[in-house]
Amino acid sequence: MRNIKLTLAYDGTGFHGWQAQPGCSTIQGLLAESIEKLTQERPTVVGAGRTDAGVHAWGQVANFETGSRMSADEFLRALNSLLPQQVRVRAAEEVASEFHARYSARDKTYRYRIYRGRVLSPFCVRYVLHEPHALDFAAMAGAARAFEGVHDFTSFAASTGSEEEDRDRTTTREILQSEWSRVFSPAPDAGVPGGTPGTEGEEWVYLIRGRSFLRHMVRIIVGTLLEVGRRPLAPSEISELLVQRDRSAAGPTAPAQGLCLHSVEYPPAV
Amino acid sequence: MRNIKLTLAYDGTGFHGWQAQPGCSTIQGLLAESIEKLTQERPTVVGAGRTDAGVHAWGQVANFETGSRMSADEFLRALNSLLPQQVRVRAAEEVASEFHARYSARDKTYRYRIYRGRVLSPFCVRYVLHEPHALDFAAMAGAARAFEGVHDFTSFAASTGSEEEDRDRTTTREILQSEWSRVFSPAPDAGVPGGTPGTEGEEWVYLIRGRSFLRHMVRIIVGTLLEVGRRPLAPSEISELLVQRDRSAAGPTAPAQGLCLHSVEYPPAV
Repeated sequence: MRNIKLTLAYDGTGFHGWQAQPGCSTIQGLLAESIEKLTQERPTVVGAGRTDAGVHAWGQVANFETGSRMSADEFLRALNSLLPQQVRVRAAEEVASEFHARYSARDKTYRYRIYRGRVLSPFCVRYVLHEPHALDFAAMAGAARAFEGVHDFTSFAASTGSEEEDRDRTTTREILQSEWSRVFSPAPDAGVPGGTPGTEGEEWVYLIRGRSFLRHMVRIIVGTLLEVGRRPLAPSEISELLVQRDRSAAGPTAPAQGLCLHSVEYPPAV
Repeated sequence: MRNIKLTLAYDGTGFHGWQAQPGCSTIQGLLAESIEKLTQERPTVVGAGRTDAGVHAWGQVANFETGSRMSADEFLRALNSLLPQQVRVRAAEEVASEFHARYSARDKTYRYRIYRGRVLSPFCVRYVLHEPHALDFAAMAGAARAFEGVHDFTSFAASTGSEEEDRDRTTTREILQSEWSRVFSPAPDAGVPGGTPGTEGEEWVYLIRGRSFLRHMVRIIVGTLLEVGRRPLAPSEISELLVQRDRSAAGPTAPAQGLCLHSVEYPPAV
């Protein structure tokens, strides 16, 4: 059997998330159906991260095994002709049989976008949370750093389930990077073509990188950091929330549309 | 009566264009309904350009008269709370009674985006035409220039109707600028936050500026320039197409989704 690795981008707006579920339109389900049409095999499609309904991906990684003789490039073209335009195979390559999109991953990066301007562009509605009210950036940036390192994230996880299949039941995760950036996009000008207009104004982008995440973990962290921004908490209070190991102690789950699985990194050997 | 000027952005994907039509969801219709809710008046909403179904706007301009005491800023907020998120009032201001969004306009700029890369990002599907095949950029850029100046655009107009209401029946128009640019967007990198990912790769952007346009004129020009790119024509052949005054001589109408009414300019006095 050959092992094919796919790098996928999708607009999660109209989907019930990554994981195949009977009667629901999911990315994993669509991929499995499309591969089956091409190979007459029933493939197991493994994804690096299980994105929730409405969450986007620019760099999801998946793999599947096949006995087919189609080249990776033929899979790319054929899958893109079968899949809806909201799901694209950005790259396809044949990899070693040991490669497993989830277990082999070294780390994953998610981004969460918040638009801080007054009027959210209609071109960004599907991809950004609009939060025009006062927020203390310095407090949020400081608090974000408190998530870095190894912690028990029980307070920051949906009460059941994990982003990954429940391979390990531990709620301890290592976060390598957790930080906010401010990005200012100038108004698009008639003299400067290119790009989607509508990103005029300031955006705050949260980036979190770690090997794996608990279910809803990134969105609960973002929801909590937004609370920090509204009524400044000291970064030390985040540490207290972590110690409590109680979901109700943390903030609400931020909406799905601002979140994007940006990239998945693998060790060079794999 | 006071006169209110609105600058509007909209994602045209789900709408039947600008112009109100019974039983159809249109931008003009939605605006008129929303203003009526706020003022209990039945306003006439004038738009600078009549965009077709599926065409977007970043800088459409409209105006309406009202006896209401609401400030322009209150209109902005109240309209944005009533309108769907796909239609946004970006700016509102009270203007002189002579101001007319269409008749006062000095020029309008449309942009048409074509993605030249192999895999179109799911985040751009609604806003860009995907044309990955070989095209001669130099030929298209040269031919585009042939539209500048005063011409009879009968060959480049839908057989009936005009973008503007049929105030004048002439098919002569003056084009101030007609040009292609190549824009290269680097791949979004996990270290560089901000912006919608998915604009990786080369985009060709057509910009056309003129006082007014005939119906479908920009899309027929783009469709013809794409034919020029496929089987290089000399720019002089565009001049011959103009002289023929025959719609069937020009190329097909390019799809709506790549087109955006980018901006409308008014003389400083108005």
